[in-house]
Amino acid sequence: MRIAQVAPLFESVPPKLYGGTERVVSYLTEELVKLGHDVTLFASGDSVTSARLISCCEKSLRLDTSVRDQLAYQVMMLEEVAKRAAHFDVVHYHIDYFHFPLSRRQSVPQLTTLHGRLDLPELVPLYLEYREMPVVSISDAQRTPLPHANWIATVHHGLPEDLLHFHPEPGRYLAFVGRISPEKRVDRAIEIARRAGIELKIAAKVDAADRAYFEAVIEPLLSGPYVEYVGEIGEKEKDEFLGNAMALLFPIDWPEPFGLVMIEALATGTPVIAFAGGSVSEVIEDGVTGCIVRDVPGAVAAVERIAGFDRAVCRKSFETRFSARRMASDYVAVYEKVIAACRPGLLTPLPPTALSVPPAVLSETSH
Amino acid sequence: MRIAQVAPLFESVPPKLYGGTERVVSYLTEELVKLGHDVTLFASGDSVTSARLISCCEKSLRLDTSVRDQLAYQVMMLEEVAKRAAHFDVVHYHIDYFHFPLSRRQSVPQLTTLHGRLDLPELVPLYLEYREMPVVSISDAQRTPLPHANWIATVHHGLPEDLLHFHPEPGRYLAFVGRISPEKRVDRAIEIARRAGIELKIAAKVDAADRAYFEAVIEPLLSGPYVEYVGEIGEKEKDEFLGNAMALLFPIDWPEPFGLVMIEALATGTPVIAFAGGSVSEVIEDGVTGCIVRDVPGAVAAVERIAGFDRAVCRKSFETRFSARRMASDYVAVYEKVIAACRPGLLTPLPPTALSVPPAVLSETSH
Repeated sequence: MRIAQVAPLFESVPPKLYGGTERVVSYLTEELVKLGHDVTLFASGDSVTSARLISCCEKSLRLDTSVRDQLAYQVMMLEEVAKRAAHFDVVHYHIDYFHFPLSRRQSVPQLTTLHGRLDLPELVPLYLEYREMPVVSISDAQRTPLPHANWIATVHHGLPEDLLHFHPEPGRYLAFVGRISPEKRVDRAIEIARRAGIELKIAAKVDAADRAYFEAVIEPLLSGPYVEYVGEIGEKEKDEFLGNAMALLFPIDWPEPFGLVMIEALATGTPVIAFAGGSVSEVIEDGVTGCIVRDVPGAVAAVERIAGFDRAVCRKSFETRFSARRMASDYVAVYEKVIAACRPGLLTPLPPTALSVPPAVLSETSH
Repeated sequence: MRIAQVAPLFESVPPKLYGGTERVVSYLTEELVKLGHDVTLFASGDSVTSARLISCCEKSLRLDTSVRDQLAYQVMMLEEVAKRAAHFDVVHYHIDYFHFPLSRRQSVPQLTTLHGRLDLPELVPLYLEYREMPVVSISDAQRTPLPHANWIATVHHGLPEDLLHFHPEPGRYLAFVGRISPEKRVDRAIEIARRAGIELKIAAKVDAADRAYFEAVIEPLLSGPYVEYVGEIGEKEKDEFLGNAMALLFPIDWPEPFGLVMIEALATGTPVIAFAGGSVSEVIEDGVTGCIVRDVPGAVAAVERIAGFDRAVCRKSFETRFSARRMASDYVAVYEKVIAACRPGLLTPLPPTALSVPPAVLSETSH
């Protein structure tokens, strides 16, 4: 199958720093190549891939401080994709809705994975307008704010099976991995650790936008007992950091659309104590690969039980449900579906107003 | 003629606050209506126009702090324009290049006025890619960084003739109007006034981005002699502020693509002392409606002569060269030109790579 992957340009594929979307696009692209597909990746020029790379800017935009108008490169990428679209069996977008006005009007089979949060009011009219565009959710929960979008599948993220290794013995500390931001609730993780009397190790970065929150709310909590702040860690350190933990704490306070760190923990055999919400109940099997809790006392009670969980079962759950191979196979099935739907005579009809409006509509809205 | 005007959504048309592009779109739209054209304005819902308004968001985005994803509304506006495009004789865009990937592929006569600075390196490959898209410059000087773009006309901005009034007598102070930012060089204006021994009145706003510059560089200069800082002024106060001045100082240090304040000064009869650069030599007739200088001593010498300039000639220059009526007539001529060029059989051929690339190009760029 001739497949185009269209990535964001903010980070390279895979990312040099933080960049969940670009990581997933990289894992998917490499797996599709391994499966024998002819894959073209539209991404920043510092990306590294075994697919054909169409470089849409020299360096990823987050790292290239000389670029003042980032939109210019995104428009040029859209142009590169549009010019080549006829050469692909399917075009898979990972850039939210940016391409919709153009790609709606092209007859090439396409789909868009929505990687971000969708609970913004301005997205409701947008996805109502583009209600025929095929979109893929990364969890069923992610769809909640936009029930009228044309959801064609949920494909959970996956990681290469050899990225992280199984650690058979449970460690003696709780782990927190992520950004320091109000919705990630590291303060809650600290409270849970103290009440349980177990050490918490925090591997987290602080974005400029969250610096004030970090200094006012979190930093004062770090000097107390049972807390070790290790700062930001790279992909390579994650294996030991997660694998040597007793459990991952995932005390989120927002509907996280996926939460890659949960499956990273499972890949090392480490179970997860997660607050209910977002994708959590789709990723964690409550009582098997972790505990889904609703409050701090519930989390403290979970900590007391978690060391007894079977870590081999966690790893097995990862291999079965969250490998990059499974993700790629799921996407190939979705590609086949959109290609079949685009066969001449089978095109999904556009909404009546999608391609032209009658002159009457112009005067109806006049002032 | 059935004309669409596509405005930015950051400010209403006309703007409630600062917004040069939205002001010009408003003046143009109202004049085209007066000339008898059937005009549709795509803009924020708090815009006020005698044309037909297609509201693309409820409030202008700069004022609506509830909107977190501004791009959503810009994409929806593009969709509204695309759906209705066939009902217009010409579509006139004022949103930079945002529509290019889509509008390049539509057969509706179109043009784009570029309102901003064009000296960013990332714009070179972009306008090289879109080298057939008809673009209008707001000064000849503005074209310099992008000589290969498809420039079809320069149309200088214009103001309604009754917006500002002729003040026949020269005042006793020098005026500075604009933002406080490094390239506007209010520090230079202060130096000129002090050396000339004439009071300078500064009507300027300070954006959040320029706050540190203001506090470090400009604020210490404001307490000295010959300087009065009056803060930000509205459109209505400009008439008196500019009209009662001896001259406007325009000591810019960057290639300003137009500089509306120069023609505002001329409209009140006030001549302009401007540093050479950008559009200055196209707007000011040196020795007639102002003085074009190259350094501070040159500006000080100009101050000594400027009170003797004929203010009626300045006003006349404004009426002849910079009225909204003249601007609208110029644009109608450009509209006729692009409509004629789009007649069947007369379409400007697209660059060979614009609509599709041969499969060979895919492999050439492969890694």
